Amino acid sequence: MIAETPPTPYYAVIFTSLRTPNDNGYNDTASKMEDLAKTMDGYLGIESAREDVGITVSYWSSLECIRAWKQKSEHLEAQQKGRFEWYSKYKVRICKVERDYGFTL
Amino acid sequence: MIAETPPTPYYAVIFTSLRTPNDNGYNDTASKMEDLAKTMDGYLGIESAREDVGITVSYWSSLECIRAWKQKSEHLEAQQKGRFEWYSKYKVRICKVERDYGFTL
Repeated sequence: MIAETPPTPYYAVIFTSLRTPNDNGYNDTASKMEDLAKTMDGYLGIESAREDVGITVSYWSSLECIRAWKQKSEHLEAQQKGRFEWYSKYKVRICKVERDYGFTL
Repeated sequence: MIAETPPTPYYAVIFTSLRTPNDNGYNDTASKMEDLAKTMDGYLGIESAREDVGITVSYWSSLECIRAWKQKSEHLEAQQKGRFEWYSKYKVRICKVERDYGFTL
């Protein structure tokens, strides 16, 4: 789904990744992390798709909220498994969303 | 692929969309627009994936370069076809990438 975010400014974390062939609970953890993110203070929404590359964009009300999510203990464990098992490469980009606009039929 | 972007700060355009069932040259135009974007001043890279939702993130060196790309004539035509035929909903978010980091196996 397209995230219903509040008026700008707010923040986005763009997480772009390439997967290894290893499963080992990947989908289960990804889904748990999405559920956990939704409980965090300042969470605004998430968008996700994977083809050759996976792109997950999560939206947050402040940099402090992004930092708290990065340091959340279950998330730290998932990040470690990500580097050891699930991802061959990734990039995280912390962004300030300065302007947005949309269209609906 | 994961875009090889320069040191921060730079800019990102997050384009999230839902497609209609209409084809009518969609893939052809999408591919042409990607090729055209690559010729634009200040273009830094692009990442794209579609499942339930489509996410395309393009990276740019400045807001002026993003504006020039938005106003490029072939791109304006594609945007119009997008609203009339290809997309049932979309959101465009203009962002300043303040920090990034990555991992490679």
